[in-house]
Amino acid sequence: MKKVRLGVIGIGNMGSEHCRNLTGGKCPETELTAVADIRPERRDWAWKTLPDTVKIYDTGSSLIRDHACDAVLIAVPHYSHEPLAVEALKSGLHVLCEKPIAVEAAAAGRMIRAAKESGRTLALMFNQRTNCLYRKIRQIMESGELGAVKRMNWIVTDWYRTQQYYDSGSWRATWAGEGGGVLLNQCPHQLDLLIWLCGMPVQVQAHCHNGKWHHIEVEDDVTAYLEFSNGSTGTFITSTGDLPGTNRLEIDCEYGKLVCEDGEIRCKRLPESERDICFRSDDPWFRCDVREEIFPTDGENPQHIGVMNAFTAHLLRGEPLIADAEDGLRALQLSNAIHYSGWTGETVCVPVTEDLFHQELEKRKAGSRRKETGDVTYESDHTGTGTRK
Amino acid sequence: MKKVRLGVIGIGNMGSEHCRNLTGGKCPETELTAVADIRPERRDWAWKTLPDTVKIYDTGSSLIRDHACDAVLIAVPHYSHEPLAVEALKSGLHVLCEKPIAVEAAAAGRMIRAAKESGRTLALMFNQRTNCLYRKIRQIMESGELGAVKRMNWIVTDWYRTQQYYDSGSWRATWAGEGGGVLLNQCPHQLDLLIWLCGMPVQVQAHCHNGKWHHIEVEDDVTAYLEFSNGSTGTFITSTGDLPGTNRLEIDCEYGKLVCEDGEIRCKRLPESERDICFRSDDPWFRCDVREEIFPTDGENPQHIGVMNAFTAHLLRGEPLIADAEDGLRALQLSNAIHYSGWTGETVCVPVTEDLFHQELEKRKAGSRRKETGDVTYESDHTGTGTRK
Repeated sequence: MKKVRLGVIGIGNMGSEHCRNLTGGKCPETELTAVADIRPERRDWAWKTLPDTVKIYDTGSSLIRDHACDAVLIAVPHYSHEPLAVEALKSGLHVLCEKPIAVEAAAAGRMIRAAKESGRTLALMFNQRTNCLYRKIRQIMESGELGAVKRMNWIVTDWYRTQQYYDSGSWRATWAGEGGGVLLNQCPHQLDLLIWLCGMPVQVQAHCHNGKWHHIEVEDDVTAYLEFSNGSTGTFITSTGDLPGTNRLEIDCEYGKLVCEDGEIRCKRLPESERDICFRSDDPWFRCDVREEIFPTDGENPQHIGVMNAFTAHLLRGEPLIADAEDGLRALQLSNAIHYSGWTGETVCVPVTEDLFHQELEKRKAGSRRKETGDVTYESDHTGTGTRK
Repeated sequence: MKKVRLGVIGIGNMGSEHCRNLTGGKCPETELTAVADIRPERRDWAWKTLPDTVKIYDTGSSLIRDHACDAVLIAVPHYSHEPLAVEALKSGLHVLCEKPIAVEAAAAGRMIRAAKESGRTLALMFNQRTNCLYRKIRQIMESGELGAVKRMNWIVTDWYRTQQYYDSGSWRATWAGEGGGVLLNQCPHQLDLLIWLCGMPVQVQAHCHNGKWHHIEVEDDVTAYLEFSNGSTGTFITSTGDLPGTNRLEIDCEYGKLVCEDGEIRCKRLPESERDICFRSDDPWFRCDVREEIFPTDGENPQHIGVMNAFTAHLLRGEPLIADAEDGLRALQLSNAIHYSGWTGETVCVPVTEDLFHQELEKRKAGSRRKETGDVTYESDHTGTGTRK
């Protein structure tokens, strides 16, 4: 069987987990052939842990130039996604990029152009799309059986992090090192899923609180109000300071309401459209005691492995990706809009003008303080979103 | 036993329900001695339905002037609360006023002054305060066992109304006739409870949609973002167009999280303060699998009867009211602030300047269209909030 030779650039928390998946036999069509990290201690880890067949490089560029792989998985801090992805694409490699695709939508646009010009694939690690719960909701929304969305509320406050987390990396939770907080680090998944399930908001009014719960300079608490093109509205509430948090997605539609919480999708379906009931019923206080259904799922939740295997199958046989670069761009456009609205206090259209966003971010980067703390790599489960099956 | 002689002004939907409670023996210390309604058909209903001992008047003023009662319950459209309450108080009667206390906080202020000058009692019909669920939450919040509030989210979209509801009264859902929509008609209860349980917000940013789900000129869909004096934040989401709706109140505190939904209060308590965990734990992704407790309640939910009996006990023996005029004012100040923010798009402080609110409301009243529909009185259950026990 033909295999895709994969290089992993950045073998910190996420990258080392990817390596373990690859060498653990979970991706039969992918062969880990190369890793790169600028930190000697991470290269030491690779020497000690990975098979002899894996080449080890001290920079992503040297890995890319050596062409010991057909594709790279980029798992470095966000600001480095663009230069490494563009370099890899230009040198003929396919790219699977960790989320977020970049810090600024403008950078994501440049990455997409590089992919188009090179004819290579640029895919995104939106592993939460593989969760059976979200796949099931996507299927329901796509089927049209619940009709148009009227309202969505997502409270996703189960991204709890202690101060220790923020102290574990000098780049973490700084404008210069990471470009944002909970929106860029934890929430790209939910922002992508929100768009995947409910469509792209056209307008945002957000309240972002910087360092509200931690000693950090970026946002760790966000409440955003959203408006969609069909007039439906939504809220998106997130934080890394709530314990125990909530992960509850509610989507109210013409033909019923769906709630995803605690690993279950519960749905109440109406016998007819609410819009018809509203204008045809002669009962001013119409109620219907509809039975709550639990939507069954297939129980599969392959996460990162699912994304990697789909990426490989795409390269080998043209099968569909889990998420492509355009998906990454859209999630980042929404993230940028929430940031920009929070920074300026304005209600903004999505996407925000790239130059204006850049100017505002640059102001914050200019005042950013590099932290004294060293970089710690953890070998624990840190994917941490509550709605699991 | 001494009884309070009560007159009910306005015997439409709510007033007639109050009469049924009073004549049905549920308020042993209150005697219904008078009713008033400007509509002949409602006076006909009173002739046919109420005991001979109940005097019937064609206006609230004539009822007040005749002094056949010690106190009045005012259950007329909101704009008439102020003139009738002030007239009753000045003539020496005590007043129990239906919610909202008034349309403008300035009017509520005048009512409170009239009560003070007359030395009479002005109480509010906030019957949801008698619900065992909210009483229990109040007790928990007051006890301090969960510590300071960090975040609250209330999705209260189970106020469903069909177009028929809005067509049933010419005053309904008009700026000139009612002064607002879901905020003034359905939500005074939840706005009062929000303040009662979590404190008064100091700042509001709201999105109010007028006639979004119905052919009406006032708001039937509201999303409000709230900030409290201790820095905690909240959302309040309501609508009369969601079916089946949601009534879910979540309060996240230093020592745990409380969720009230489906007639239950569920709580997850932390072994120590989250604030201590955040800064003392060396686990970057601290989790604690705390058991969910169901908080028991006493199961009692006396609603309007509870408020009426407390009102009478207050007049007879000085026992505490369920809610007084200041509570009514605070709930209206929050309501006015949400309206004002929604109208202007501004983030506003609570309370908003009364003159500015008045000017904005007058603009809307000037453009208000009186509806052609007649007035229908229903004899059905219409108190309709979902979180019941």
